Amino acid sequence: MQKETNNSTGLVRVALDAMGGDHGPVETVKGAVLAAQSANVAMILVGDQGPVEQELAKYDVSNLAITVVPSEDKIRDDEHPIRALQTKPKASVLVATRLVKSGDADVVVSMGSTGASMASAVLNLGLMEGLERPCVGGPFLGLAPNTVLMDIGANIDCRPALLLSFASLGVSWARTYMGIENPRVALLSVGSESTKGNKQVRESYQLFQDSQLNFVGNVEGMDFFTEKAEVIISDGFVGNILIKFTEGLGAAFAAYTKKRLGSSLDETSISEFAAELVQLTNRTRTNGGPLFGVKGPVIVGHGSSGADEILAAINTSVRYVQLGMVDIMKEDLASMNAQNAENAQNAMNAAAATAVGGDAGR
Amino acid sequence: MQKETNNSTGLVRVALDAMGGDHGPVETVKGAVLAAQSANVAMILVGDQGPVEQELAKYDVSNLAITVVPSEDKIRDDEHPIRALQTKPKASVLVATRLVKSGDADVVVSMGSTGASMASAVLNLGLMEGLERPCVGGPFLGLAPNTVLMDIGANIDCRPALLLSFASLGVSWARTYMGIENPRVALLSVGSESTKGNKQVRESYQLFQDSQLNFVGNVEGMDFFTEKAEVIISDGFVGNILIKFTEGLGAAFAAYTKKRLGSSLDETSISEFAAELVQLTNRTRTNGGPLFGVKGPVIVGHGSSGADEILAAINTSVRYVQLGMVDIMKEDLASMNAQNAENAQNAMNAAAATAVGGDAGR
Repeated sequence: MQKETNNSTGLVRVALDAMGGDHGPVETVKGAVLAAQSANVAMILVGDQGPVEQELAKYDVSNLAITVVPSEDKIRDDEHPIRALQTKPKASVLVATRLVKSGDADVVVSMGSTGASMASAVLNLGLMEGLERPCVGGPFLGLAPNTVLMDIGANIDCRPALLLSFASLGVSWARTYMGIENPRVALLSVGSESTKGNKQVRESYQLFQDSQLNFVGNVEGMDFFTEKAEVIISDGFVGNILIKFTEGLGAAFAAYTKKRLGSSLDETSISEFAAELVQLTNRTRTNGGPLFGVKGPVIVGHGSSGADEILAAINTSVRYVQLGMVDIMKEDLASMNAQNAENAQNAMNAAAATAVGGDAGR
Repeated sequence: MQKETNNSTGLVRVALDAMGGDHGPVETVKGAVLAAQSANVAMILVGDQGPVEQELAKYDVSNLAITVVPSEDKIRDDEHPIRALQTKPKASVLVATRLVKSGDADVVVSMGSTGASMASAVLNLGLMEGLERPCVGGPFLGLAPNTVLMDIGANIDCRPALLLSFASLGVSWARTYMGIENPRVALLSVGSESTKGNKQVRESYQLFQDSQLNFVGNVEGMDFFTEKAEVIISDGFVGNILIKFTEGLGAAFAAYTKKRLGSSLDETSISEFAAELVQLTNRTRTNGGPLFGVKGPVIVGHGSSGADEILAAINTSVRYVQLGMVDIMKEDLASMNAQNAENAQNAMNAAAATAVGGDAGR
């Protein structure tokens, strides 16, 4: 399914939070210029007007589709997202998200506080049925590029039905965005048997089993590397610990490698290799990823992103819009929820019939 | 504190499950011979008599302290531990553990099914106060050799008091076995603030805060590499996923490195380096680790262990006995539990006083 953008130029209109991230507006503006030069986009830079235009003046943008929409202030990583949105109603991420809400942009991209992006998205665009907050995920390891992990964000102590919703979103993503046919779904646990795992996973197993998803059971920590499933589901608590651990481990491996191979390889080769190790543990953050479950396209990226990563996130956002991912995920989720409701109703009817039969037999 | 062994020779008597692991009795017997040659041990090989003596005949053991105690059958990884103990009452791990119970050995070492070792240990030696099953942990990463993670075993959906018990065991281990003064304790979570984390971690925070442990708050996944704490506590669900993930990642890194550097380094160098990467993600399993919380010394190791790893596990077991770790951990745990009970009593008294004051003020 191809989705038309809401404008006559054929360009995807990307509202970029120009103040977001550690290096905004310097790197964000540079990334936007790169995108406007190379991709089928109209860039809308949302930020403090003076600093953004000052950055923009460094480039020849005469033939590029770049506009500036002024905002005031930015929300920092160390601020409480919801309180910050209230005290800074014209913050860049809010103004950018509102452009999507009003139909003046097709997608918002931010390298700023993920919490602020989430809060702004929920407030302005809303959540799909059954979700409590946006879900974050994707192929989080370069070493396992076809394995999606969700949630790695802020969904903590999830009910089984919520985990199942993440799985639906992950399957839509793997199938349509990544091109994987009939993606296999698994629950992350400590053993493959249905009886293994914590209460949350054990309670989720049957729900997954009864769903229309291609559920292959539980997988363990090593199974990110064994290609048993393309969509691995965990509570955001476990997922977030895992992704941060992986980043730390990648950096530690890189440092170890530099030291260990310093005398056997030349400096350029070793630096390249060390950078690869970091990237292999950092896939999602490099390309940016969607806030899954939001009823509008929002792409977030890592705060430390430079222009190249920002360009990659913009490219992700363009493809997300062109494929019509939000509509696809909404439809898949609604279909799964309807199937679940039917399963539950059938189970209740069966239980009632058994009870009646039991009475009759007395 | 030095603990005397219960015999007149001055040798630590190690009961080795000679049938345990993927390579028993071939590698277990070899490891035992290496240990008897190099360390201050009397090795007791527990296993099917024929195969064990056949292996032993390969070596000149005339001057070594090695004896064989016959057992029948072994418990495999794919068997249900408790049921297997019932149907195989003379299995090697059971007979070996009973030697510790009867005072005929000082410690038991097994590379076999960890579940069977645990069940046998609980049955024959018992658990310290407040524990539900043995806890497993230690410095699980070669890249972070001074950071202990517990539990990585089978304790799932732990109550806060249970997590605190793991912390006490971990602190005793870090302080006495690893020689770290006043080890810092942290809860593994998704943010450093006390309000961050799942219900389990949030409920545990205050209990840790009020304890006599050197609690430094929550740490995140990357903090295994930032030296913020020496003892990191998690539910066995998270810990087990993390350790299996790490092993998978280490192997994947090693495979990637072999391929990537194949043309820049000679074959020996690259194989060595790849093996290092695996070892850096595999520390605990290489040296074996205790079943923490068992009221007797039990060391378990990885099923795939060869003679060198078995020797390392035997060395761990000797040090564990010589330091009197079980008694130290039992005392530390009792002291912490007493302090906790006092804290709880004080809190109740304070609440009662407030309630009385409140009534009087009406």
